[in-house]
Amino acid sequence: MSRWEPNTRERLLDAALDLFGERGYDSVTVAEITERAGLTKRTFFRHFSDKREVLFAGQELLSRIFAEAIADAPASATPMEAIAAALTAATAPFGPQRRERARQVKAVVAGHRDLHERELLKLATLRAAMADALRARGVPDPTAGLAAEIGGLAFTTGFARWIAPGSERAFTELVREALDELVAATTTLG
Amino acid sequence: MSRWEPNTRERLLDAALDLFGERGYDSVTVAEITERAGLTKRTFFRHFSDKREVLFAGQELLSRIFAEAIADAPASATPMEAIAAALTAATAPFGPQRRERARQVKAVVAGHRDLHERELLKLATLRAAMADALRARGVPDPTAGLAAEIGGLAFTTGFARWIAPGSERAFTELVREALDELVAATTTLG
Repeated sequence: MSRWEPNTRERLLDAALDLFGERGYDSVTVAEITERAGLTKRTFFRHFSDKREVLFAGQELLSRIFAEAIADAPASATPMEAIAAALTAATAPFGPQRRERARQVKAVVAGHRDLHERELLKLATLRAAMADALRARGVPDPTAGLAAEIGGLAFTTGFARWIAPGSERAFTELVREALDELVAATTTLG
Repeated sequence: MSRWEPNTRERLLDAALDLFGERGYDSVTVAEITERAGLTKRTFFRHFSDKREVLFAGQELLSRIFAEAIADAPASATPMEAIAAALTAATAPFGPQRRERARQVKAVVAGHRDLHERELLKLATLRAAMADALRARGVPDPTAGLAAEIGGLAFTTGFARWIAPGSERAFTELVREALDELVAATTTLG
């Protein structure tokens, strides 16, 4: 990021989400986003490969954070402890100021089939990253795959609760709670 | 299906898979598939919306079979018993004669990013169908979501073993075994 364009990524994101909310995702162009942000198209494409990636770019970073936190968990950590550490690491940066933006992203994605599909794919990538990181720690299958699925469910459940209307609790607290509930639910499967 | 075109769907499927294997998925046209099958394009489009759906059309049916089997499980069935019944119902039609075709489909899908993404989406649909069917039986979340994830993992794991080189065991036997392993693995999460 250049010194003379502070917070460009944030400004592009805010401009895009405002425009998507005002006029609908489909009708908004990259040129309009950059105009609203007071930046150039060239700057836009230094941050995002296309308009759609404004909504999903953060998920690449998320997969990396998950994988690294699992790798960095103490050798003595159980699979669920490693997943819990990853959920904490991945959600800790999402303070209350990020909640409203997350709600805006979700509203755009939910109303659009292609975007919803893209989100499902990113979640599949996230689960695969977790499973691979667990296998690299020596966790065998099917435990590694199962732990990753539970981690993915805890993340989406916690996220839904975090962005729910009126929600005020921290994202990290909500994903950890969802994880605890899922682990408890493993005894109710019959 | 018209009386004078017996097994049209199967003939189209065989022709398409043979051509995909010979020349690669991308370069094969619907016209070539219908020519190889000795049928018209109009007949093709009565069975499949496009070339890609030749590879995935069966998965829609699969979601329906899963959901119906879960709905039809005895009222006393636990979530896992309902999932087990669904896995049995969904895989029972896949006898040894279907295994080679499944291998061909998998080979085409694995070599093609767009097709792989489509497969992940169909799997997400399958899991959602199972979770919804469990909720309709009164299974609460997070148990319903968790049971559906485990059912999805059992299905993909059993499928991978079924189409593995040299594999001779029945698909149903392999998915049920994978399910048992996953349920056992719930105690190894820590």
